[in-house]
Amino acid sequence: MEKWRATTNLRRSLKSILNRQLSSVSEFRYLNGKRSCQSSFNLIRDCKSLGQVNAIQHRCFSSASTLVQRNPSFSTLNSDDISYFKGLLGEKSVIQDEDRLETVNTDWMHKYKGSSKLLLLPRSTEEVAQILRYCNSRCLAVVPQGGNTGLVGGSVPVFDEVIVNVSSMNNIISFDKVSGILVCEAGCILENLISFLDNQGFIMPLDLGAKGSCQIGGNVSTNAGGLRLVRYGSLHGNVLGLEAVLANGDVLDMLGTLRKDNTGYDLKHLFIGSEGSLGIVTKVSILTPPKLSSVNIAFLACNDYSSCQKLLMEAKRKLGEILSAFEFLDTEAMNLVLHQLDGVRNPLPASMHNFYILIETTGSDESYNREKLEAFLLSSMEGGLISDGVLAQDINQASSFWRIREGVPEALMKAGAVYKYDLSLPVEKMYDLVDDMRIRLGDLATVVGYGHLGDGNLHLNVSAPEYDDKILEQIEPYVYEWTSKHRGSISAEHGLGLMKANKIYYSKSTETVQTMASIKKLLDPNGILNPYKVLPHSLNS
Amino acid sequence: MEKWRATTNLRRSLKSILNRQLSSVSEFRYLNGKRSCQSSFNLIRDCKSLGQVNAIQHRCFSSASTLVQRNPSFSTLNSDDISYFKGLLGEKSVIQDEDRLETVNTDWMHKYKGSSKLLLLPRSTEEVAQILRYCNSRCLAVVPQGGNTGLVGGSVPVFDEVIVNVSSMNNIISFDKVSGILVCEAGCILENLISFLDNQGFIMPLDLGAKGSCQIGGNVSTNAGGLRLVRYGSLHGNVLGLEAVLANGDVLDMLGTLRKDNTGYDLKHLFIGSEGSLGIVTKVSILTPPKLSSVNIAFLACNDYSSCQKLLMEAKRKLGEILSAFEFLDTEAMNLVLHQLDGVRNPLPASMHNFYILIETTGSDESYNREKLEAFLLSSMEGGLISDGVLAQDINQASSFWRIREGVPEALMKAGAVYKYDLSLPVEKMYDLVDDMRIRLGDLATVVGYGHLGDGNLHLNVSAPEYDDKILEQIEPYVYEWTSKHRGSISAEHGLGLMKANKIYYSKSTETVQTMASIKKLLDPNGILNPYKVLPHSLNS
Repeated sequence: MEKWRATTNLRRSLKSILNRQLSSVSEFRYLNGKRSCQSSFNLIRDCKSLGQVNAIQHRCFSSASTLVQRNPSFSTLNSDDISYFKGLLGEKSVIQDEDRLETVNTDWMHKYKGSSKLLLLPRSTEEVAQILRYCNSRCLAVVPQGGNTGLVGGSVPVFDEVIVNVSSMNNIISFDKVSGILVCEAGCILENLISFLDNQGFIMPLDLGAKGSCQIGGNVSTNAGGLRLVRYGSLHGNVLGLEAVLANGDVLDMLGTLRKDNTGYDLKHLFIGSEGSLGIVTKVSILTPPKLSSVNIAFLACNDYSSCQKLLMEAKRKLGEILSAFEFLDTEAMNLVLHQLDGVRNPLPASMHNFYILIETTGSDESYNREKLEAFLLSSMEGGLISDGVLAQDINQASSFWRIREGVPEALMKAGAVYKYDLSLPVEKMYDLVDDMRIRLGDLATVVGYGHLGDGNLHLNVSAPEYDDKILEQIEPYVYEWTSKHRGSISAEHGLGLMKANKIYYSKSTETVQTMASIKKLLDPNGILNPYKVLPHSLNS
Repeated sequence: MEKWRATTNLRRSLKSILNRQLSSVSEFRYLNGKRSCQSSFNLIRDCKSLGQVNAIQHRCFSSASTLVQRNPSFSTLNSDDISYFKGLLGEKSVIQDEDRLETVNTDWMHKYKGSSKLLLLPRSTEEVAQILRYCNSRCLAVVPQGGNTGLVGGSVPVFDEVIVNVSSMNNIISFDKVSGILVCEAGCILENLISFLDNQGFIMPLDLGAKGSCQIGGNVSTNAGGLRLVRYGSLHGNVLGLEAVLANGDVLDMLGTLRKDNTGYDLKHLFIGSEGSLGIVTKVSILTPPKLSSVNIAFLACNDYSSCQKLLMEAKRKLGEILSAFEFLDTEAMNLVLHQLDGVRNPLPASMHNFYILIETTGSDESYNREKLEAFLLSSMEGGLISDGVLAQDINQASSFWRIREGVPEALMKAGAVYKYDLSLPVEKMYDLVDDMRIRLGDLATVVGYGHLGDGNLHLNVSAPEYDDKILEQIEPYVYEWTSKHRGSISAEHGLGLMKANKIYYSKSTETVQTMASIKKLLDPNGILNPYKVLPHSLNS
C-alpha cells in the first residue's frame, strides 16, 4: 500500500516536474549556504567560554573543563614593536583601535575571546614575511586570521597574540580557462571567487555557509569541507599549489598550477588543514570544475538503516557523476522538526518512517539527469530500498525538503538541552553508535541521528529537558572512545582549534601526534604560530 | 570540403556504431596497459648506466654526467647482521642467492644496477619495523622495493643498500561496498586489486601499464599517475589513509578510512610521492569508484594548437564527467608513426593535419554517452574546432587509434637518436616550447610534440639521425630553464629517483627543497632510507 502510494507520488512528481521552471544553480546554492551556516551556528551554541589574560578555563556542556596557561616564553608587545610595524606597513595597516580589536579578538559565535592589542593588515607576501621574521625574533605569538568564521576557536587569539589578518591580500592573480586553474591571494572571499568564476563558466570545488565572509586562505588552512565535498572531494585533491610563509619569514613557493608534478615531497599538504600553525598561506592555486546548470532533489523514506546504506551504494553506482548530496535523518529527528518548527510538514505524511533520505543531483543535462534520477528512484522502490518518496517540483518544494534536513539543529535547540557531536565514521558502523547511545541513555534523554551520509559524517545529538551531569557521564568519554574504536574522527571538518586540541588522541595515534609535534617544532621552533591550537597543550608549549 | 567529409565520416561512424558489440572495459584497459608500458620502455631506452661499488657515473644522452659517491657513514653488512635478520624473519625471507639478488639489484629496464648483498622479505608491519629499527641502529642503508617498475632508478640500490621488498605483504584487509573504501597491504599487485574490485563492481582510481607487476605501496610512494588521472585525479585525492614505518622503526598509523577527518596535520601526504625516502608504506586505504561499462573513442584533427586547447575546454564542459582521455600528437609525430611503423594508417587520410586529438569517454550509460559524444563532436565541427574526425566503430578501430598515439615513442626510436623530455606545463604554454625548440634547432633535428593534453603533460622529443653534442647543447639546459620559467615540472609523474635528484631546483624553489631536506633529516636522521634519491646529492649525504 505504501509502495503503491510512493509510486504514485513519485510518478506524479516526475510528471509535473517536466514542465517546471527549475531555479538557477546560484539560487540553490544560496539556500544551501544559509542552511549550512545555521547548522554550524547551532552546533556550538551550547558552549560557553571565559577569557582572561593569563589563563583561560574553557567549559563546554559536552566536555570536561580545560585550563590553558599563557606560554611565558612569549614576549609582550611594546612601543618599539608598534613603531617597527608602522614603519613596515604604514599607520593604516597597524590597528590598535579598541572597537576594531574587539571584533577580531572575538570569534563570530562569541564563544571565544582573546585580548590581542594589535591587528596587522599586510598587503603582500613580503609584508607577511617581514612581520613573521620580526615576531619570531622577538618571540611574539601570532594568530593568522582570514574571515574569522571558524567554529573551534582557531582564528582568534587565546591571550595577547598579534593578529595577522590577510584580508587586504585579495587579488585574483590568474585564471586559465583551458585548465580551469585559478590562482589568487589568500584574502579573497570565497563568494567573490564564486562570482568571478561564475562569469567564466566555472565553479569553486567548495561552497560553505560562511562563503560571504570566509577567505580562501582560511578555507585551505582549515581544509574546509562544505557542501560539494561528496561531489568534488577535499581540498587536498583540488588545491594544486600554495605559497606559505613560515614562522621565520621564509617564503615557501609551492604555487604550482600543474595537475602532475612529482618533483620531491608535496609539502603543500602540510599547510592544508594545519590551521595556520605551520605557516601563513598567502596564495592559492586551485582546480575549478565547469559550471553545471541542472539540479534535482528527492525526499525519500527507508524502513531501516541497512536500506539507507544500500540506497547510498546504488546512488553512487547509478547516479554516479551527477550525485551532489546524500543526506539522512532518523524518525526522532523528523519528529523534533515537525513538533518544534512552524510551517514544516512531512512530505511523506501517511505514516512515520524510520529513516529519511535527501538526494540532490547536479549536472549539465537537465532532461537526462531528471530521467536518470527518475529511473533510479523507481528501481530503488521496486527493489524495496525506498518505502516512499517524492521529487521536488519547484524551488519552493526543494527548499522545503532542505528545510527539514537543515532544521534539525534548530529543532534540537528549541527542544531543550542538547549534547552535540560531529563525527566521521565508516558508513556501515555509523548508526550503531546511535543505537548504542539509546541503550546507554534509556529514558534519560532522546538520541537523534542525522547528517551527511554520503560523506560518512554523522551528527549525533542527545536531547534532554535540561543539562545534567548524569547524562554527560553516560555520553563522554564513551562517544569519543566508540569513535576511536571504530577508527572514526572526532572532527569531521571543523578542525581542532583550541576547542579540541587536547582530544586529538581519540582520532590519531601517539606516534602520529608526536610526529606532528616534531614537524611543528621543525617549522616553528619558537611555537609563535597559532599557539594553544591543534596539538595537545602538553606538546604545544 | 574537408568539413563535409568529416561530417560524413562522423555520421557514418555514429550510424554503424549503434549496432557494434563494444569490447568490455577490461579488454580496453589491457590494451591501454600494454601501450603505456611500451611507451615507458621507449622513454628510457636511450640511457646507459655503469655500476660500481663505491662510485657510479651515470650518463644519459639527454643529460650531463653525474657522479655519485657512496656515503661513507653507512656501515657494510656483516655476518652478525645476517644472523639477526634470519632470527627475525626466518631463513626463507633472508635472500643471499646471487641470481635472485641480480634481479632485485637491477631495474626492469636494465638501466640502473646496484650491488646489494641482501634481500629481505618481511611479512608484516612489525617485521618491517624491526628491520628498520635494526638498520637504523647499525647505520645500514635500505632501499624499499615493491614491484620494481620505476623509471628513474628509485627502486634499486645505488651501491650495497639492503633491499626491503614488501611483496609478501599482499593481503586485502577490508573492502566496504557502501563507501567503496579498500584497505590492503602495500605488497598487493595493482592488477590483483583491479581484479578483486571488478568482482565487487568497483575499479581502482589508477591504472598503469605496469599493473601486472607494480604494487600499491610503490604506486602510493611514487604518486603514480597513469591512465585514469584525468578522470579521477591524483592519489593525494584518492588515498584516504596509510600506515608507514619510519627509519627508526616507529609505525605511523594513519590508516583512516574516512572521507572527512580534520584532526591535526594530514601526514600521509608526506609519504605519497616521497619515493620511500621518508618511510616504508605498509598499508593503504583507498577510495575506489564504481565500475563503468561504456567506452567510446574518437580520433580528430585540428588546424592549430589554439583549436586543440579550445576543444579541451569544450570537452571538459560538454563531456564533463564521462571524459576519460584527451591525448594529442602533432603532424611530425604522425609522420613518424606512418613512416616507421608497419600497418599503421591515418584514419583521416585526405591530407595531413597540424594536430591530432584522441578523445576517450567512459560512463555507465552506453546510449547516452554515445549521444553525448556525438553531439559534442558535431558541435565542435560546426564551431570550426575540428577539421576532420572519426569515431571508433569497434574494438579493432579503437585499438588502431590508440596504436597511433602510443606508437609515437616506438616510431621515434626507429627513426634514429632521440632526446626525450617528460614535462608538465600550463596547457596554454605547452606547445610554445615545441615551437621554440624548432627555432633553436633549425635543420639540426626534428622536434616532435605529443602527450596527455588533458593532464597538461607534454612529451617533447627531439629526433636526429645520430646523437650529437651540438644538438644536446641546444636543448639543455634550455628545456629545463624554459620549463622552470613557466612554472612547469621536469617530472610529471615518474618522480626524481636517482636520475633527476640533482635537477629538482628546476621545479622547486631553494627554500622548498631546503624544507624537504629538513623534513628528511627529521624523519630519517641517519639518511638510511633510499639514499642518493629524490633530493640533491649535496643535501642527501
